Amino acid sequence: MLHISILGAGNLAYHLAKRISQIQGVNLLQIYNRSPFSFHFDSFKQAQIGNLSELLAADIYIICIKDEEIATFSTLLPLKNQFVVHTSGNTPMEVLADTHRKGVLYPVQSFSKEKEIAFSQIPLCLEAQHPSDYALLEDFAKKLSPLVYKMSSQQRKQLHIGAVFANNFANHLWYISEKHCQKHDIDFRILRPLLQETYQKTLQMSFYEAQTGPARRADTITIEKHLSLLDGIDQQIYKILTQSILQAYEKC
Amino acid sequence: MLHISILGAGNLAYHLAKRISQIQGVNLLQIYNRSPFSFHFDSFKQAQIGNLSELLAADIYIICIKDEEIATFSTLLPLKNQFVVHTSGNTPMEVLADTHRKGVLYPVQSFSKEKEIAFSQIPLCLEAQHPSDYALLEDFAKKLSPLVYKMSSQQRKQLHIGAVFANNFANHLWYISEKHCQKHDIDFRILRPLLQETYQKTLQMSFYEAQTGPARRADTITIEKHLSLLDGIDQQIYKILTQSILQAYEKC
Repeated sequence: MLHISILGAGNLAYHLAKRISQIQGVNLLQIYNRSPFSFHFDSFKQAQIGNLSELLAADIYIICIKDEEIATFSTLLPLKNQFVVHTSGNTPMEVLADTHRKGVLYPVQSFSKEKEIAFSQIPLCLEAQHPSDYALLEDFAKKLSPLVYKMSSQQRKQLHIGAVFANNFANHLWYISEKHCQKHDIDFRILRPLLQETYQKTLQMSFYEAQTGPARRADTITIEKHLSLLDGIDQQIYKILTQSILQAYEKC
Repeated sequence: MLHISILGAGNLAYHLAKRISQIQGVNLLQIYNRSPFSFHFDSFKQAQIGNLSELLAADIYIICIKDEEIATFSTLLPLKNQFVVHTSGNTPMEVLADTHRKGVLYPVQSFSKEKEIAFSQIPLCLEAQHPSDYALLEDFAKKLSPLVYKMSSQQRKQLHIGAVFANNFANHLWYISEKHCQKHDIDFRILRPLLQETYQKTLQMSFYEAQTGPARRADTITIEKHLSLLDGIDQQIYKILTQSILQAYEKC
């Protein structure tokens, strides 16, 4: 039986606790939070603690707190030579205090307490200082999800950049598009089916092949017309992304 | 009974012909193509013509050819004062020859012959010179799809810009992300579930609310770290989109 303790009570902590309670061979030993737990954690009442001095011996301690607080928090843990992992995509393993055997369990997904999520479909990126700890972490992670990947802090940092482009920036472009339509009194619902098609297309072909539009066709007349109808930062964004597409297809 | 003739035999012409053959009260009178028809049009053999002089009197002539050829092509039609519409999102109605009663039927979707598409879920943007023609076009369009919108050439141009941001540019960001992962030996499949979540989230909340990431949090430490790990045009794109997000949330 693997004994797991979770440190923190945010969205990830909640989904992790729930998942652990569903799987065999793993025991959710304790959940620590410095402030009172939200009602979401009611089914884990017995495991709740509010003081780090109450921490019992666990196989893995999983830190689920804000990225910028991980380093300091890890120095406060009254543990010695225990296996402590954080769950941040954007934080090197090394920031954990040297008093611990260090590791990372990074679930590549965004969590909110209100939305159910199939943990079994979440890729988990793992790292550990010691091979034996890696084996332990992998054993645990594979019970959470079959999508387990070994990944260095260096790679994880690059993955996070990839996520910013694919998710944060793509969402922002949708926002710009919606704002542009609103400005011209156009119902954005007109673009919704196309948005869905654009997304679904990429499940069937590569992004490279799926590319369409004026820049893909090197249609400079349309590009110039569009630029003349835009201003400010939207115009700059149009220009640089068009330039990038032209470069990708070597049409510039 | 409405008599419709299609001019062109590309992807849109194919899906339009198929849809017309499924609906009541509309007759696909003729399909013109200057070159031989592909096998996709085999079930419309009787309607096929290869010479514009064979054109019969129809209620609506629908031009489904490349944007840049519409104007010239419309002058070649041996018709007088007939109702001729084009199907381009990016072309003003006015480019049609003055010998015709002009209109536009713009389906906001991308078509490929190989992929089945539910025409009834495609938004159709309509425009016509004369109110009576608009009524006729609307009558026809509503048989194709319930999602019918009246839209001026001016608005359609702006809608096209919206589509470039939401679709073409979003797809290119996914491509950049994939390329970035490949460069750092990271399996892009790790980001796939997050991509799906990002897309699906926008069906439940606004793009504005759905925004996450370093720029949304105004997390300048991460932003600077990411910029130092990028170069070339990817770095410029990261910079400008971050700037735009900071502006949108008034954090700059």
